[in-house]
Amino acid sequence: MRVFNFSAGPAVLPEPVLQQAAAEMLDWHGSGMSVMEMSHRGKEFIGIADEAEADAAHAARHSVRLQSAVPAGRGDRRERHRPDEPAGGRTTADYVHTGEWSKKSIKEAKKYCAVNIAASAEDKDFTYVPAQSAWELSRDAAYVHVCTNETIAGVEYQWTPDTGSVPLVADMSSHILSRPVDVAKYGVIYGGAQKNMGPAGLTLVIVREDLLDRALPITPSAFNWKEQAAADSMLNTPPTYAIYIAGLVFQWLLAQGGLAAIERKNIAKAALLYDYLDQTSFYRNAVRARRPLAHERDVPVGGPVAGRGVPQGPRSAAWCS
Amino acid sequence: MRVFNFSAGPAVLPEPVLQQAAAEMLDWHGSGMSVMEMSHRGKEFIGIADEAEADAAHAARHSVRLQSAVPAGRGDRRERHRPDEPAGGRTTADYVHTGEWSKKSIKEAKKYCAVNIAASAEDKDFTYVPAQSAWELSRDAAYVHVCTNETIAGVEYQWTPDTGSVPLVADMSSHILSRPVDVAKYGVIYGGAQKNMGPAGLTLVIVREDLLDRALPITPSAFNWKEQAAADSMLNTPPTYAIYIAGLVFQWLLAQGGLAAIERKNIAKAALLYDYLDQTSFYRNAVRARRPLAHERDVPVGGPVAGRGVPQGPRSAAWCS
Repeated sequence: MRVFNFSAGPAVLPEPVLQQAAAEMLDWHGSGMSVMEMSHRGKEFIGIADEAEADAAHAARHSVRLQSAVPAGRGDRRERHRPDEPAGGRTTADYVHTGEWSKKSIKEAKKYCAVNIAASAEDKDFTYVPAQSAWELSRDAAYVHVCTNETIAGVEYQWTPDTGSVPLVADMSSHILSRPVDVAKYGVIYGGAQKNMGPAGLTLVIVREDLLDRALPITPSAFNWKEQAAADSMLNTPPTYAIYIAGLVFQWLLAQGGLAAIERKNIAKAALLYDYLDQTSFYRNAVRARRPLAHERDVPVGGPVAGRGVPQGPRSAAWCS
Repeated sequence: MRVFNFSAGPAVLPEPVLQQAAAEMLDWHGSGMSVMEMSHRGKEFIGIADEAEADAAHAARHSVRLQSAVPAGRGDRRERHRPDEPAGGRTTADYVHTGEWSKKSIKEAKKYCAVNIAASAEDKDFTYVPAQSAWELSRDAAYVHVCTNETIAGVEYQWTPDTGSVPLVADMSSHILSRPVDVAKYGVIYGGAQKNMGPAGLTLVIVREDLLDRALPITPSAFNWKEQAAADSMLNTPPTYAIYIAGLVFQWLLAQGGLAAIERKNIAKAALLYDYLDQTSFYRNAVRARRPLAHERDVPVGGPVAGRGVPQGPRSAAWCS
């Protein structure tokens, strides 16, 4: 019997992916080696990594990078707050505070820059996403940071903020690849692999070309995007097995019909769970569940209401309060 | 047919470990989940992580920590140079330069402190370890850093430096757990998992208690040992599957008889390869291969000569020059 884990951290993986991983454990494609045993400089693993990045790019409709050696974590707080977030000589960053993961991001960012809290949902226990009209952005921010799915209180962005010429940086750890995203509207998108992509210990990073080279001098080389890009994400030994599993998941996503098809499945899955919960009087949904206005949505499909993305991660605070 | 990879990066794993991992891929111990799918906060994974740390501690005869979320890499340069190396208010660190991995460490360390090259083997193409009598240590160093196995030119420490009251920090990435080590003589030992412990993407860190709390203020929380220790290495989602595989390897190591037995095996394995190479006139060994003096050795077994540890990692520069 397969068990579906809805708790903190890593989540369920497609069964065919696990079956293939088990079958290939001792001998990948006649190489005589497990993927875990291969040199990351060998033709076998370089092929695996190239295909994984190409498939992820195909799914996201944008070139991507599998950040070697950045440990994942729904919240990969290191990734989020590392010193090489695009500064470009500017010393203030705007943060929208929508919950626990935003809070941790803000704490870390303060080590490297002045943080302006452009908006906060703390006044209502983080049960909503502040409308952009209420954001108080800095005049000269290096970037605007959002966490587009907060798993603790359970709010999810259903629209893409417009930050003009200031790069929009989004932590999408808990819902990345769960639906189509207009990547061109973001300066940086990052997300830990462990919810929708593969094993914990890997981060997918999509960085706009002109933002690669803005690391502070104190940035460790392994976290310097320009250096990593120049080394094809192999400045260090990358987490090879996690990349392999993520590659199998990307193949599976594409075989399902890509992210638009996955979104339809996710909406159906979420309805199965939340429609049941909503019909009982035992649970109360504290999250302001409103359908986004047409101009706020950039993905023109009937999406889940706020707080109703892929049902994963602890939502008890929102649903059982 | 099993193939043994001697190239850069990850290396061969015990076959029984891979067989068990394949068998447990879809259902770990009746949990209905792959280890990759488990919450890192659940009782199943916490049990796996606790046992892995206990077994590693048993093998090393010292309490250890599996550093969650520190990507491995023979050279995990991030780990090596991260800002939380024990500074304790001191601003200079001593580095012994024995090759490529030392060089990368030095480059990164310069971002955070003044680096004093206490000794260098560059004069002879890194084919020897400078004797401690020739080291020019600083008067007031925060720590002394060594890389105890340099895989590129192929030299290995056969003795433990004595740095008195200054903490000795050792990168043992490529030969950690290949033989017994007197852990008490080190302030910090660290090593990527991918050579002798498990998949790339995990680092084993052994830190003397009083050195946990010396991070610079700019250190990301995930690299702050005190914070990680307080959170049982789960400040973020750790690389759960890598910890599971490493745990299986630790069980295998103990079943083999522990590190003293493993060292005997490794010496026999190395002899099989290098005795053959030495008997031909085609290869020349550029590494100064001398047996250590008795007082330089702290492990009283007939060990391999310099450059003759576990035969893994590229040694071609030393053996084929």
